[in-house]
Amino acid sequence: MTENEQYPGLGLVETSTIAVWKEGLLLESGVTFGPITLAYETYGTLNEKKDNAILVCHALSGGAHAAGWLPGQRKPGWWDIMIGPGKAFDTDRYFVISPNVIGSCYGSSGPSSIDPGTGKPYGPRFPVVTVNDMVKAEVPLLDHLGVEKLLCVTGGSMGGMLALQWAVAYPRRVRSAIAIATTHRHSPQQIAFNEVARQSVMADPAWNKGDYYGAEGPRLGLAVARMVGHLTYLSDLGMERKFGRRLRNRERYGYDFSLDFEVESYLRYQGQSFVERFDANSMLYITKALDYFDLAGGHESLTDAFRGNHSLFLLIAFSSDWLYPPQQLKDVAKAIRRSGGEATYYEISSDYGHDAFLLEYQKQEPLVASFLRRVQEAAP
Amino acid sequence: MTENEQYPGLGLVETSTIAVWKEGLLLESGVTFGPITLAYETYGTLNEKKDNAILVCHALSGGAHAAGWLPGQRKPGWWDIMIGPGKAFDTDRYFVISPNVIGSCYGSSGPSSIDPGTGKPYGPRFPVVTVNDMVKAEVPLLDHLGVEKLLCVTGGSMGGMLALQWAVAYPRRVRSAIAIATTHRHSPQQIAFNEVARQSVMADPAWNKGDYYGAEGPRLGLAVARMVGHLTYLSDLGMERKFGRRLRNRERYGYDFSLDFEVESYLRYQGQSFVERFDANSMLYITKALDYFDLAGGHESLTDAFRGNHSLFLLIAFSSDWLYPPQQLKDVAKAIRRSGGEATYYEISSDYGHDAFLLEYQKQEPLVASFLRRVQEAAP
Repeated sequence: MTENEQYPGLGLVETSTIAVWKEGLLLESGVTFGPITLAYETYGTLNEKKDNAILVCHALSGGAHAAGWLPGQRKPGWWDIMIGPGKAFDTDRYFVISPNVIGSCYGSSGPSSIDPGTGKPYGPRFPVVTVNDMVKAEVPLLDHLGVEKLLCVTGGSMGGMLALQWAVAYPRRVRSAIAIATTHRHSPQQIAFNEVARQSVMADPAWNKGDYYGAEGPRLGLAVARMVGHLTYLSDLGMERKFGRRLRNRERYGYDFSLDFEVESYLRYQGQSFVERFDANSMLYITKALDYFDLAGGHESLTDAFRGNHSLFLLIAFSSDWLYPPQQLKDVAKAIRRSGGEATYYEISSDYGHDAFLLEYQKQEPLVASFLRRVQEAAP
Repeated sequence: MTENEQYPGLGLVETSTIAVWKEGLLLESGVTFGPITLAYETYGTLNEKKDNAILVCHALSGGAHAAGWLPGQRKPGWWDIMIGPGKAFDTDRYFVISPNVIGSCYGSSGPSSIDPGTGKPYGPRFPVVTVNDMVKAEVPLLDHLGVEKLLCVTGGSMGGMLALQWAVAYPRRVRSAIAIATTHRHSPQQIAFNEVARQSVMADPAWNKGDYYGAEGPRLGLAVARMVGHLTYLSDLGMERKFGRRLRNRERYGYDFSLDFEVESYLRYQGQSFVERFDANSMLYITKALDYFDLAGGHESLTDAFRGNHSLFLLIAFSSDWLYPPQQLKDVAKAIRRSGGEATYYEISSDYGHDAFLLEYQKQEPLVASFLRRVQEAAP
């Protein structure tokens, strides 16, 4: 087997890190924090005009490893299906940059990072960060890579929030934004789901108020929290098609509290596997950032947030996504148009619920590819 | 203040208990269990013809105390708004019977009851019961009260499942059924929500595999489980109207993990107050009964379950109820009609989500009152 066959698409990639904000970044909370480490990957090549860079922003549990293969791993990056030679984000044409957000646990500064002041993990002493802070933290990375203006910033779910925030906070550095399956701010229902997930972690005695590094940590609480998340990622119809009321390895009900239904088994698996790969405190910090996010924050209105903005917007929602219902992104499109800007909005019909943004690549690919060409052809 | 002013409506009521199934009840699981204690209340008077009895079935966290006042309590029963002199279930005309289901913790046999064999609470040794078992267990109560045939059996949410199960399992003892905000069986999404709630309790070390009586019990896990439930009781729009993104006692975000938003505070309160009044094992047993429930169980189809059934049905769903979406009860209405039976289906427009069945009494009252009169006037 050649390396190309073993690692199709981008082949082997690597994750880099960079220290930024050495003098400290003034966070929205008023706290100054730094230096900040950012983990990131890049795919493709920056052209001579330096106008083909695309910034990819990940969702809650994602990281810098968006595409290609890390040595020894059996799965490619989380958006490999969209990023690579000949794919929607065509690495033969574009230079793709994929950083890990601060607050996360995949190489960028977060609660599980070592506090240089104490030599121990920050834990609950890590400052609360917002989506705006995550975006700000990444600005020096663009400078470092020599990218003055992004051809596009994109992402789904939380990544979509970052994409929108980039366009609103740094309009002169963003030619276009593609925001997928996302919202301009959380409704109380969306906050409620996050709060229950947080409470589940914090109810686990092993959370120990956030100081659990070196010990087992809140494995049980985090697994339940992830199950709460998964409730919102699938649609009712999608679950019906995927599981129905099928029993798991059984002829009849067990009449006990072990697993009867396939959907129970699926949820428990999702919860348990998340525990192996994600830090509980990062889940707390990132969900809180999502709840605080308000694209209109500091502006008179959502429309006002886009006023004078010359970025082009592509907004994609999925019909059965009830975590971020299409209406919320439709409201963003309306606000952009009212402000005098240009937004293309698509609602893709899908049964996959919120998960569709990672699954329905065939429906997204032509929209993304043609939008990017249009942006390239437009005057910068 | 007279007693009438202090205790409006039905005034003071009392809860009775009765021992039934002294030789044991054969449960759906194959286990024989008995004797069984049932707690129940009655309101109004059984008439001479004994044809004015209405059986009221409660929801997950309800009990026998459906209406009137228990001494010393500051709130009347859970459906007092619908039961009493001149109300929808008019106690001047009807004899209302309200038992507590088995598996619960409000006086009927359940996991927190004392096992006469050991002198200790059953805990996890209590047998798993189904909705069908809950219904069967109540049959001797009707015999004891001298009620051969019910004028009506009614309930909302889980109570609606019991009402439908009563009509299907005992068609000759049921002249009519009113099922509100309910379903004929759980979809995988509904099972998933229940499973996450159960996992939350079982993840709490204080659950101790169900043997926690005498100790504190899984207070934290049960609170989170109740929050998961509450996520499904309210609609998105209802939450928007009730809470929006309003902050709690704050001018700005706290940038920490204490309560920022009102919806967070509401959820935490709901979780904590539930812990004071409900048994964690009962929550496990009852949610499992809901998940096992299948009205078509043992029949070729849902239509087949109603074949030859002469009961009259009133089915009421609420537009914003996403826990039990109107379509599910509409499917029940269709099945009844296909079987040759008579069903009246209403979808009430409401923003209250699933909670509407306890709140929208003004919209339900005329439907219920006129339906009951029609049943009374029809040939028995």
